[in-house]
Amino acid sequence: MMLELYFAPGACSFVPHAGLEAIKAATGTVFEPKLVKLHKGEHKTPEYLAMNPNGQVPVLVVDGQPLTQIVAICDFLDRSFPQAEMLPTEVWARAQAMSQLAWMNNTAHPAFTHVFRTNEFAESEAAQADVRRVAAPRFRGYLERIQGWVAGAAPYWFGARVTFHDAYAFTLLRWGGYAGVDPKSLPAYHAYIERVMAAPPVAAALERERIKLDTYKAS
Amino acid sequence: MMLELYFAPGACSFVPHAGLEAIKAATGTVFEPKLVKLHKGEHKTPEYLAMNPNGQVPVLVVDGQPLTQIVAICDFLDRSFPQAEMLPTEVWARAQAMSQLAWMNNTAHPAFTHVFRTNEFAESEAAQADVRRVAAPRFRGYLERIQGWVAGAAPYWFGARVTFHDAYAFTLLRWGGYAGVDPKSLPAYHAYIERVMAAPPVAAALERERIKLDTYKAS
Repeated sequence: MMLELYFAPGACSFVPHAGLEAIKAATGTVFEPKLVKLHKGEHKTPEYLAMNPNGQVPVLVVDGQPLTQIVAICDFLDRSFPQAEMLPTEVWARAQAMSQLAWMNNTAHPAFTHVFRTNEFAESEAAQADVRRVAAPRFRGYLERIQGWVAGAAPYWFGARVTFHDAYAFTLLRWGGYAGVDPKSLPAYHAYIERVMAAPPVAAALERERIKLDTYKAS
Repeated sequence: MMLELYFAPGACSFVPHAGLEAIKAATGTVFEPKLVKLHKGEHKTPEYLAMNPNGQVPVLVVDGQPLTQIVAICDFLDRSFPQAEMLPTEVWARAQAMSQLAWMNNTAHPAFTHVFRTNEFAESEAAQADVRRVAAPRFRGYLERIQGWVAGAAPYWFGARVTFHDAYAFTLLRWGGYAGVDPKSLPAYHAYIERVMAAPPVAAALERERIKLDTYKAS
């Protein structure tokens, strides 16, 4: 199986990116990382839109065929590499894991998008400020919910192996800095993320993307 | 396995609702439908929030344990009732099906929410009008994309069996009426949905929810 991952530094493509590094560590399966330069509009070219009409990262290309949507990519990778144990194997535990992944993807993630890419949701500056004002505390509330989930992580979300959920938790806490959330104001979450970042597969993805956790600037 | 589905008429809970009717038709497995009266705030009570802190439908309760998130519920039901063939069995076809389901859930669905529950995203009336103005044509564009997917449906999304995707396609087209989209303005989509609505499992869910397709009022 030939795997290519289209990713952009700091974007939610970090979830399959770190996941593929974990799969590589567990199984030896390599993947080709494909950097997409969002600031150059590389995700809006006709070639890219043919692969993903949403013009978003990530895209996982498997033997030349594109697969979009984080939840679908994670499910596919888990099914394809069961020996990497990326998701719980017991049916109900796996269902709850999929539920958490879907929630991070369709609830926590877009709350941040409303703060960070507000121009996608309203045109006037006044309306954008209104949208941002509503979304920012909501996003912080979602980070607090994640903190509740990870407070007992030992050491990672599902125990011994670092996986997609850990990478999403990192991405969302990192984004928090852009939404006025000091990551240190969520101490249990922050301590957990420091463990996650030190896990070799996550560290490898961080190094390739050249990103760090702390994007927060005190105002 | 004891299954209870918390649903509200016309909400996206129609997806697992129709799906559970299809599973019942294929396997004889019954479920208990639990009507949640949103206008009475039954989804915001402490009891309901303990089950789903998002205060949303659907919730699938399995042997007393709640599972939230449509994508996770559909994946769980498909895994639990393989003989119902709710999703394609071939790995890559299943991955693409999960991708489409995730997209309807995290992209098409929230575009409608920005039109219909705009007060969740902005406070001032002017900002809400701005948000609605941006979201409405985007939502129509997403319905057109679905029309492209279903134009060749014979007779349903994945062929002979009606499934979750058909129910989501119905729900989104029905919502279109509230967003100024005449369902007849998407003729291939509309013709397909008429077939979907006539499928006995979908018809049973429609009858229980007492809903019809056409919510559109010409302005």
